[in-house]
Amino acid sequence: MKLSMIGLGKMGGNMTRRLLRGGHDVVVYDRGADAVAGLASEGAIAATSLMDVVSKLTAPRAVWMMLPAGDVTEDTIHQLADLLSPGDIIIDGGNSNYKDSIRRAGMLQPKGIHFVDVGTSGGIWGLAEGYSMMIGGESAAVEVLRSVFETLAPAADRGWGHVGPSGAGHFTKMIHNGIEYGMMQAYAEGFEIMRAKQDFGLDLHQIAEIWRHGSVVRSWLLDLTANALKADQNLSDLKGWVADSGEGRWTVAEAIDQDVPAPVITLSLLMRFVSRQDDSYSAKLLAAMRNQFGGHAVKKE
Amino acid sequence: MKLSMIGLGKMGGNMTRRLLRGGHDVVVYDRGADAVAGLASEGAIAATSLMDVVSKLTAPRAVWMMLPAGDVTEDTIHQLADLLSPGDIIIDGGNSNYKDSIRRAGMLQPKGIHFVDVGTSGGIWGLAEGYSMMIGGESAAVEVLRSVFETLAPAADRGWGHVGPSGAGHFTKMIHNGIEYGMMQAYAEGFEIMRAKQDFGLDLHQIAEIWRHGSVVRSWLLDLTANALKADQNLSDLKGWVADSGEGRWTVAEAIDQDVPAPVITLSLLMRFVSRQDDSYSAKLLAAMRNQFGGHAVKKE
Repeated sequence: MKLSMIGLGKMGGNMTRRLLRGGHDVVVYDRGADAVAGLASEGAIAATSLMDVVSKLTAPRAVWMMLPAGDVTEDTIHQLADLLSPGDIIIDGGNSNYKDSIRRAGMLQPKGIHFVDVGTSGGIWGLAEGYSMMIGGESAAVEVLRSVFETLAPAADRGWGHVGPSGAGHFTKMIHNGIEYGMMQAYAEGFEIMRAKQDFGLDLHQIAEIWRHGSVVRSWLLDLTANALKADQNLSDLKGWVADSGEGRWTVAEAIDQDVPAPVITLSLLMRFVSRQDDSYSAKLLAAMRNQFGGHAVKKE
Repeated sequence: MKLSMIGLGKMGGNMTRRLLRGGHDVVVYDRGADAVAGLASEGAIAATSLMDVVSKLTAPRAVWMMLPAGDVTEDTIHQLADLLSPGDIIIDGGNSNYKDSIRRAGMLQPKGIHFVDVGTSGGIWGLAEGYSMMIGGESAAVEVLRSVFETLAPAADRGWGHVGPSGAGHFTKMIHNGIEYGMMQAYAEGFEIMRAKQDFGLDLHQIAEIWRHGSVVRSWLLDLTANALKADQNLSDLKGWVADSGEGRWTVAEAIDQDVPAPVITLSLLMRFVSRQDDSYSAKLLAAMRNQFGGHAVKKE
């Protein structure tokens, strides 16, 4: 089908390529003209503005946004709301907070514009392997987009599904990312203990490779870990500084809202905060207390 | 090659079957005569005692133990040490503590008996999919067993490796299991939050299936989780009681020995302890304190 992709970064750009290879017509727009020109040279239809996007689609129009969560997504939806017509569909494939998605669906409903929230997983490997998509919204709108999901997914009949009403797609993706935090932290801790055990002179890349086949901990994250360890198992070029992009903390907030104990996901988030501290006031205070009650040695700045 | 398998439970029995299918001659022994008779009917060579095992092998003899860690393994090694000859090999494929394996290798060395510790992962699926094996010991002994590892592994050239000296195999398997605890807990918490979010009426089996294809959290543990949720996503037949069999707590002790922070693996172990409490004295004490300082309501037995 013909649809538009707004936002041509690592995710939107590769999703456009996968759609083009699948025979779809994709009208592309990004604030960066180079990204638009690049994809136009690969067969996409270039647009110079959101208005131009809308003019190059035919009703019912489908506009898929792959934008940073927050203001950029919010502004774009407001602009599209003024440009689109009843029956058109806005898809948010980014990592928006599911509460925003529920609110946006409600805001668009009086205008007759459908809103579909698609939690999208797969990262930079999605172009080759397909994207896993968790979809929220009305069934009718999801059905209009069926061929798009079938192309973006790893296969037409797997890796995607309509999981519930508006917000359910982004909610499910949020939990997916929370789980991801916990899994990553578990691997990271295990490999750090093995690295510390110098008696055995373990080859951490070899061990990751062994585990990839037949072990209980085999996973795609382990495949990627093995790749990273193959290049340099000392990870010399990296600093142990880990960002977070929202979904982890939203998952923790949701667990608290629901009175559900989720200690490992929570701690995995907090360990990322620890990774970003050059020094720790709480550690200083612990040292000060030990010194106060026991005269224990401290390290001075 | 010809070798013996001692201990014909879920692991040893299926490993024997995989070895038989791979063309090896396997002398089998177990304290349960039924298990021996069953595998004999599938082509194994029955033995009635450890002495009988040894008499049915030719030097250099290879005796693979798949026994519960602890006393059973210890006793069997001592008995075999008296029966075997210099150049023979004892393989411990169970979940022994790596410190025991180092000690046992040292104990057998003066007798000229080789000891090979093999951390073995794969569970009940190993028969069909092959076992992931992390091997510790002397290279010469490992080389003698190469064809055995090639048969047991998912493929001859993957899923197994000689990772270091005696103890390194069981050490690596211990860490594998520690990581497994953390991954399992991360999935479990995520699914519990989704289940609590009743507004969306999420189908947890559907979501697991979506994630299996193209998502960042795809893994073999997720495949198994999807299987369990397919049968009954309410898990009505289960009590939320989770055992642990040693490796998790050994991993935590090792992290502490090495001064390595492993909070998520540690907490995953502790959450299993929580799962086994009918009631909690510490929770009672928290309730009592809240009542003491604020007159807050408590629940009475």
